[in-house]
Amino acid sequence: MFEAAELGKKVDKADYAKRAPELMTKLLEAQRAQRAAQVPMIVIVSGVEGAGKSDVVNRLTEWLDPRGVQVQAFWDETDEERDRPRAWRFWRKLPPRGSIGILFGSWYTHPIVARAFDELDDAAFEAALGRIEAFERMLTLDGALIVKLWFHLSKESQAARLADPEKGRKGHWKVSPLTKKFAKRYRTFAGLSERAIRRTDTAGAPWHLIEAEDRRHRDLAAGELILEAMNRRLAAPPRAKAAKVAKATAPAATPATTKTVLDQVDLTRTLTPEKYDKQLEKQQRRLYELTWEARRRRVSSLIMLEGWDAAGKGGAIRRVAGALDARLLRVIPIAAPTDEERAQHYLWRFWRHVPLAGYVTIFDRSWYGRVLVERVEGFARPDEWGRAYKEINEFEAQLVEHGMALTKIWLHLSKEEQLARFEERQKLAWKQHKITDEDWRNREKWDAYADAIHDMVVRTSTAAAPWSLVSAVDKRSARVEVVKTIADRLEATLEAR
Amino acid sequence: MFEAAELGKKVDKADYAKRAPELMTKLLEAQRAQRAAQVPMIVIVSGVEGAGKSDVVNRLTEWLDPRGVQVQAFWDETDEERDRPRAWRFWRKLPPRGSIGILFGSWYTHPIVARAFDELDDAAFEAALGRIEAFERMLTLDGALIVKLWFHLSKESQAARLADPEKGRKGHWKVSPLTKKFAKRYRTFAGLSERAIRRTDTAGAPWHLIEAEDRRHRDLAAGELILEAMNRRLAAPPRAKAAKVAKATAPAATPATTKTVLDQVDLTRTLTPEKYDKQLEKQQRRLYELTWEARRRRVSSLIMLEGWDAAGKGGAIRRVAGALDARLLRVIPIAAPTDEERAQHYLWRFWRHVPLAGYVTIFDRSWYGRVLVERVEGFARPDEWGRAYKEINEFEAQLVEHGMALTKIWLHLSKEEQLARFEERQKLAWKQHKITDEDWRNREKWDAYADAIHDMVVRTSTAAAPWSLVSAVDKRSARVEVVKTIADRLEATLEAR
Repeated sequence: MFEAAELGKKVDKADYAKRAPELMTKLLEAQRAQRAAQVPMIVIVSGVEGAGKSDVVNRLTEWLDPRGVQVQAFWDETDEERDRPRAWRFWRKLPPRGSIGILFGSWYTHPIVARAFDELDDAAFEAALGRIEAFERMLTLDGALIVKLWFHLSKESQAARLADPEKGRKGHWKVSPLTKKFAKRYRTFAGLSERAIRRTDTAGAPWHLIEAEDRRHRDLAAGELILEAMNRRLAAPPRAKAAKVAKATAPAATPATTKTVLDQVDLTRTLTPEKYDKQLEKQQRRLYELTWEARRRRVSSLIMLEGWDAAGKGGAIRRVAGALDARLLRVIPIAAPTDEERAQHYLWRFWRHVPLAGYVTIFDRSWYGRVLVERVEGFARPDEWGRAYKEINEFEAQLVEHGMALTKIWLHLSKEEQLARFEERQKLAWKQHKITDEDWRNREKWDAYADAIHDMVVRTSTAAAPWSLVSAVDKRSARVEVVKTIADRLEATLEAR
Repeated sequence: MFEAAELGKKVDKADYAKRAPELMTKLLEAQRAQRAAQVPMIVIVSGVEGAGKSDVVNRLTEWLDPRGVQVQAFWDETDEERDRPRAWRFWRKLPPRGSIGILFGSWYTHPIVARAFDELDDAAFEAALGRIEAFERMLTLDGALIVKLWFHLSKESQAARLADPEKGRKGHWKVSPLTKKFAKRYRTFAGLSERAIRRTDTAGAPWHLIEAEDRRHRDLAAGELILEAMNRRLAAPPRAKAAKVAKATAPAATPATTKTVLDQVDLTRTLTPEKYDKQLEKQQRRLYELTWEARRRRVSSLIMLEGWDAAGKGGAIRRVAGALDARLLRVIPIAAPTDEERAQHYLWRFWRHVPLAGYVTIFDRSWYGRVLVERVEGFARPDEWGRAYKEINEFEAQLVEHGMALTKIWLHLSKEEQLARFEERQKLAWKQHKITDEDWRNREKWDAYADAIHDMVVRTSTAAAPWSLVSAVDKRSARVEVVKTIADRLEATLEAR
């Protein structure tokens, strides 16, 4: 494949002097349109060591308005990155809508390098590429423009540049320590890169091969490819398209009369105050000890608490907190997103809070908002919430693979019990802040929510990340059950390691 | 000091049952007012190990509306934290306006522990406390409410709790591994803590000692102190006060006729194209090699580029970028703050981008906006920009102490040369995005800006972080000078280590 790109293309000085300013003018125009359209744009710069990727990046930032460009280099992982799923470091650096992120090094680097040094076997390499494809598709469907550039240099040219760096170019003294290291394995890298490129060369995020022998050709080609991709994307915003496709594929809502998984929850469970005290103490103590062991062994717990309004999420969280050293715990209440969060894919704000190894994080409401409130209230389009189930499963799979104990709890309630609690809240001064008009409005849509919850549980209860449906009618029984479920999950995770 | 707090205060069960719900109601009310007033609030929870700080934190989150509360635990530093000035980890966790941050562990922990284990000598301990005082004053002046709680337990009680943890309380099984470690040095810690408390017990951020023998007294006392502090702060917003004081202390503007430091810049320097090529190449090559050495030795460069509109900041940055491997460089263009940034102290958005050890970060405009555009345009009040000089010096001192090479460059221009460039920009298609109405408006305020720049240079040119004023009239000479200045600074920093 790469040999086909060895065409010896050249651009002479005069030609370059003419084309470069024109290209720059057009790039700036396209960038203004891209900012206005609030398209997030990702440019991946990869390729052979010694091809001059660093120079290309500098050239691109020269041609574009730098205020809208962020260059992100990925090489050494920090321990904050290592202590989280591998994708975290990329999520944290994704460009917000309207910006351009030039990624120097990317999610391709690790699989290729790890395979070359035999840290990954073939199946794991394939799996990593599959994950990349899914990741890029997800970003593209969300409106992102991804331009993937591969800079190619023949083995002979690479060797020549290394042996005689003085030759043939300005800034010849720039030979990074990395170039020498990777040049030794040229063939291995070429083979693996070719596989990676073929496997991830999709319609939504295609690869572009650029011959890097001649630096003027190289830079112009990169700029022109980016310009073309921008213009194509801005001419035909994929949102409209996506919406059309979506109508066909959006899951049919469950008819309201059908029995849902929620109907299987036994709402009659109760605990006497005496049994409650004893059992809660027992489960809390167990969880306390497990979390210190998990801290020692660097295993995180990620707990998501969802449930009907007034189901008692707050009370349950306090019982979990009561079982923990406050230093080990973070509670993330999910409310309206900030503007930095709104400028990203909806999962970004959750990735942001993925805990470091050894800690416990409780999400009070979570990413499931996408398929609950956003679906029922129409804040997300059917194609958006329709594909969210798969995106969420993929997200959670990454958490579990990283070794986290993931607990997903739905606190279930009958419609009658909810009414009783709303009324009680309105009576008590110190509970009044807990009841709003929105709660009453949500209540009117009980059936629509029940359908959404049913779909959510059915579609996202995976072997690795099952849902636990807990009856919340009896608060005592619910609280013990929540603490126990979390402890069980953490214990099983610790045992499996 | 601590003995005075050993009064054996107790709250019986019935009293607690009556007072707790009342306190909770009032705290929730105060919290709503605090959110409405957009006051950022910091509660520092410290004290003797075994005093039950974790339980207090859990109790506070129970009494307050958890959606407005973030508990932040500070113990082990991550390497991302260790590789930056010590304050960075606190800046990144400060609560935004309208929120409450409960800090479990705080900026007090490290100095006390390090002094106890003899990693700090006495003078360094004092210096650390002085820095804390300045930090807290800065936050308080910015509108923050800081409540500092110290939980005290006598040596005997601590020993008893450790020896017989079953005794006397619910959740007796909670004895963290840390408690045992620190109990051995009770006297040492008590002495150092007392010094820290006395030294930092200021009017703006006073300490509160709480006896922790009786857990009901302990929790109620904490809640009541917090409530009182909130009510006092909300009754008398310090902004108005600060503004009054400020009028007296705001520095008098330099009369426009006076010579400023800018007049000393030699604007006649030029370079021929031949000399430029040679000298630029020489300095770029030097910088390239220095940055790789700095990377190896984990020394960061932080470069701030300020200058008149059209002084050529962009062109200078590109020459610096051209000298670097793009993987080592981050350029941070400073534009309008995001809403997450606006919800914090103005320095927060810069702390956010403080580079990891070994990297180069260029700020295209910087924290000096506070004493330039914000001063001239009146976006900051005189007391705000008036105290910013000191705050900035303090900030930069921390960067330099951490071992960074800090370069501060002002690109200077004559008023006539600026006009010529504005006119040229309007003519060239690919430069038109670079000139806005705002640029013209700024130009009208040339003299006011000149005064502000003069004050800035005079007040913030410190031995550790001097300003370099570079003539930008001749672009060639300016670019060489910028690259050379940065290289000189990095070289000197590397040599000094």
